[in-house]
Amino acid sequence: MTAREGRLYVVGLGPGDAGFLTHDASAALEEAEDIIGYAPYVARVPERPGQTRLASDNRVELDRAREALSRAAAGRIVAVVSGGDPGVFAMASAVFEAVEGEPAWRDLDIRVLPGISAMQAAAARLGAPLGHDFCVISLSDNLKPWDVIAARLEYAARGDFVLALYNPASRARPHRIHDAFGILRGLLAPETVVIFAKSVGRAEENIFVTRLDEADPTQVDMSTLVIVGARGTRVIARAAATPFVYTSRKGP
Amino acid sequence: MTAREGRLYVVGLGPGDAGFLTHDASAALEEAEDIIGYAPYVARVPERPGQTRLASDNRVELDRAREALSRAAAGRIVAVVSGGDPGVFAMASAVFEAVEGEPAWRDLDIRVLPGISAMQAAAARLGAPLGHDFCVISLSDNLKPWDVIAARLEYAARGDFVLALYNPASRARPHRIHDAFGILRGLLAPETVVIFAKSVGRAEENIFVTRLDEADPTQVDMSTLVIVGARGTRVIARAAATPFVYTSRKGP
Repeated sequence: MTAREGRLYVVGLGPGDAGFLTHDASAALEEAEDIIGYAPYVARVPERPGQTRLASDNRVELDRAREALSRAAAGRIVAVVSGGDPGVFAMASAVFEAVEGEPAWRDLDIRVLPGISAMQAAAARLGAPLGHDFCVISLSDNLKPWDVIAARLEYAARGDFVLALYNPASRARPHRIHDAFGILRGLLAPETVVIFAKSVGRAEENIFVTRLDEADPTQVDMSTLVIVGARGTRVIARAAATPFVYTSRKGP
Repeated sequence: MTAREGRLYVVGLGPGDAGFLTHDASAALEEAEDIIGYAPYVARVPERPGQTRLASDNRVELDRAREALSRAAAGRIVAVVSGGDPGVFAMASAVFEAVEGEPAWRDLDIRVLPGISAMQAAAARLGAPLGHDFCVISLSDNLKPWDVIAARLEYAARGDFVLALYNPASRARPHRIHDAFGILRGLLAPETVVIFAKSVGRAEENIFVTRLDEADPTQVDMSTLVIVGARGTRVIARAAATPFVYTSRKGP
């Protein structure tokens, strides 16, 4: 333990492109003595002499959070880095779950710095598909039962929300998006707008607009964000470019 | 018409604090010849010699979008500025609604630059209340009927989503948040976590954590973002600070 008070930043890096970084996030990455995160995110932080970098595997979020909190408690200035927004299906929940488990960490100086989440970047590329009421759902059933996810898909579809679907598939569970489309096809019109946004903000970015009855869920992988439109979601064809897509503020 | 091709940026300024701005947003504001937007947002853009500034009232979104598109079509580099994320209950939908109405605008170079939305900044201040599945609903019934809003609140509550409620009240319609709480109190447990986040990112910021049975909707005004927790939303008391709030990745 040092006498100096430590600090933990939980920093959102946004999708791949550095242009999505906020000024506060850049400043925290510059100030931090220790950078901790899933290896591909740590690799996106510019290297600085004297800064410690701890890159870990994707499935050890709680361990990573505890390591970061221990270092901050010992007086270090630590940044846990996360893709997108740490508050949206990313590291912030794991950090506070760890804090809840250890009373000594409750009065630490912890500052979450939000970032642009994948759904926002994907939406911006096309226009404004999230321009009206929407639901954000992770299809991962690692930590919650599939029944809960299925029920939420059904409520969201019945409520005519736009849907942003995170974690639609993984190597271990490629079938989740197929199951989700099965539910949605039973509830929504065949012409419902569907967007597959792959690797948004990275060199290999690929964004594809289709309709629910023609969408092929085998094209979805773990780097894909899926948006399903509401009845008020409209497609504007263009001569030589991806169409614009927006959701009307007025409904259908 | 000039020979040069114009461009329209739709720029998210984030909540008040300039630290929330992305690097891409800053670059577009620097490049733009014309800055167009609701007066308080235009006032947040640093002045630059030679740049035209057109500040308008809040309730003329479509007029403002058309003005910006006309200028871009005439070869100007234009930035329409919006608080938060232009894609979330802000200017981007109005811009594409205007584009849909005028075929000559469909092949313009339009670039939406996402920003940190109020719900992300409010969530970050407290921890990670949006850390699991959530719904985002505007309570404004200016353009959609209240019945649609009421139904969405009910579906979201039954689905055990966290709720982020935008436009909870206005001078003309102060009762909307009262009606919404009436619906939610009939469906959710009395101890459900409620957050009132007023003027996030501005000097007068005030964030308050309470529970559904004790929340007083008369404290909500047009600058307030309301977050209603799910069953998995947890409050961590602290010795000398606002509690942390996060939503568990595992559910309740």
